[in-house]
Amino acid sequence: MSARRFAATVSYDGTAFVGSQRQASGRTVQEELETAVAALFGGPARVEMAGRTDSGVHAIGQVAAFSAETRLKAHTVGRALNAHLPEDVAVRDVRDVAEGFDPRRWARRRWYRYTIWHHEARAPLLRQTAWHVKGNLDVTAMQEAAAALAGTQDFIACSGQLEDGRTSVRTVFKAGWRREGDALLFDIEADAFLPQMVRRLTGALVRVGRGTLEVEEFVRLLRQARQGSIGPTAPALGLCLQRVWYDEEYVI
Amino acid sequence: MSARRFAATVSYDGTAFVGSQRQASGRTVQEELETAVAALFGGPARVEMAGRTDSGVHAIGQVAAFSAETRLKAHTVGRALNAHLPEDVAVRDVRDVAEGFDPRRWARRRWYRYTIWHHEARAPLLRQTAWHVKGNLDVTAMQEAAAALAGTQDFIACSGQLEDGRTSVRTVFKAGWRREGDALLFDIEADAFLPQMVRRLTGALVRVGRGTLEVEEFVRLLRQARQGSIGPTAPALGLCLQRVWYDEEYVI
Repeated sequence: MSARRFAATVSYDGTAFVGSQRQASGRTVQEELETAVAALFGGPARVEMAGRTDSGVHAIGQVAAFSAETRLKAHTVGRALNAHLPEDVAVRDVRDVAEGFDPRRWARRRWYRYTIWHHEARAPLLRQTAWHVKGNLDVTAMQEAAAALAGTQDFIACSGQLEDGRTSVRTVFKAGWRREGDALLFDIEADAFLPQMVRRLTGALVRVGRGTLEVEEFVRLLRQARQGSIGPTAPALGLCLQRVWYDEEYVI
Repeated sequence: MSARRFAATVSYDGTAFVGSQRQASGRTVQEELETAVAALFGGPARVEMAGRTDSGVHAIGQVAAFSAETRLKAHTVGRALNAHLPEDVAVRDVRDVAEGFDPRRWARRRWYRYTIWHHEARAPLLRQTAWHVKGNLDVTAMQEAAAALAGTQDFIACSGQLEDGRTSVRTVFKAGWRREGDALLFDIEADAFLPQMVRRLTGALVRVGRGTLEVEEFVRLLRQARQGSIGPTAPALGLCLQRVWYDEEYVI
């Protein structure tokens, strides 16, 4: 029996993780998934993921891939993995994918959402999933600034440290703010993201909303193409990887 | 200076509480609020609340009342209380109310929401706020059964233990299910609720959805007027007190 390749949609509460990817120390989503896959199929397991999320960042649609020799239906693999996973990680569905499927390189589009709780008082039920921002925010100005993100451009200004030689050009398909009750949601879809990109953008866009950064200045900083020039990151807890898209033919 | 009466809208994550009301032992929302009010104004404080919520039940619109001699604006009282409250409780707004305002007796209408995560896989980010229900649910049948709740009737069938001599007649203004993505929301508004009423109703309505309880049988159990005959409770964590309404004139 030859190994089959599986892709799993993974949700997690990032609060108690040092991040999605294995690190020198600390609990990671990758290790939890590898432990579950190894427990189910025996032997060591290697799990790869579509997006690297930082400590405290959540996911409802992360994509993880692994290989296993099994006759189980993909659906059954998903159920069995959930029985092995801790309560802050779950596999939403598992499907058979083409040999060599690489969840990171083969991804065509990713959607992140940043949630702000915009109210003078804290929201106890959202304290791990939304950034609490008080005071007036000019959402129209934030939306205007967000419009400058669309298209293919160099996003080095809103990137954290990047490995030498890596391109910082990305294509943003859409980016915009939406109010939902007392929450403000920033949705951004791109082919791929740079480290800390959404959190740095959110931080700068909130400064635009507060009136401490003009829309024109935001655009100037963005175009300046100096690493991190857009400014500091918004807190990790407001960020959630919503979904990753692939070309249809990679699912078999 | 005579004492002023205040009403506060209170939100809390019920996970780490044994309930809203003071008990022989365990952490309660009432005590947290009383500690904060006492810290702000000095001396012992007495806080009353609109609804008694069980251990694990949440609130975004609980109403609490207290009296204090102060010249602070109600708004400022709210901000100051939040500085004294732990991260799982917050005061959303504070307003001046009529002398003698009793948040429980003067309430005219209460809205509770029960949230079900209806998916085969767990939802890590909703694990404290939604009941995870797998398998098929006939939402049309659940809706049909919920329709039988409207009106003024004896709800003893879906009540927990009641003090002797207390009426179990309540008026349900509306009750119904709504799907939101993979979540199922049960919203119910009534003049007042009996102990465990929403959780017992939800438990029975899910049995209707699963087909193990016919709509007619649900209605028969409801009308039977025997305490608790509708069946066991749904878990506390899915329940949230959304809002409490008063007559306008009680706010001054």
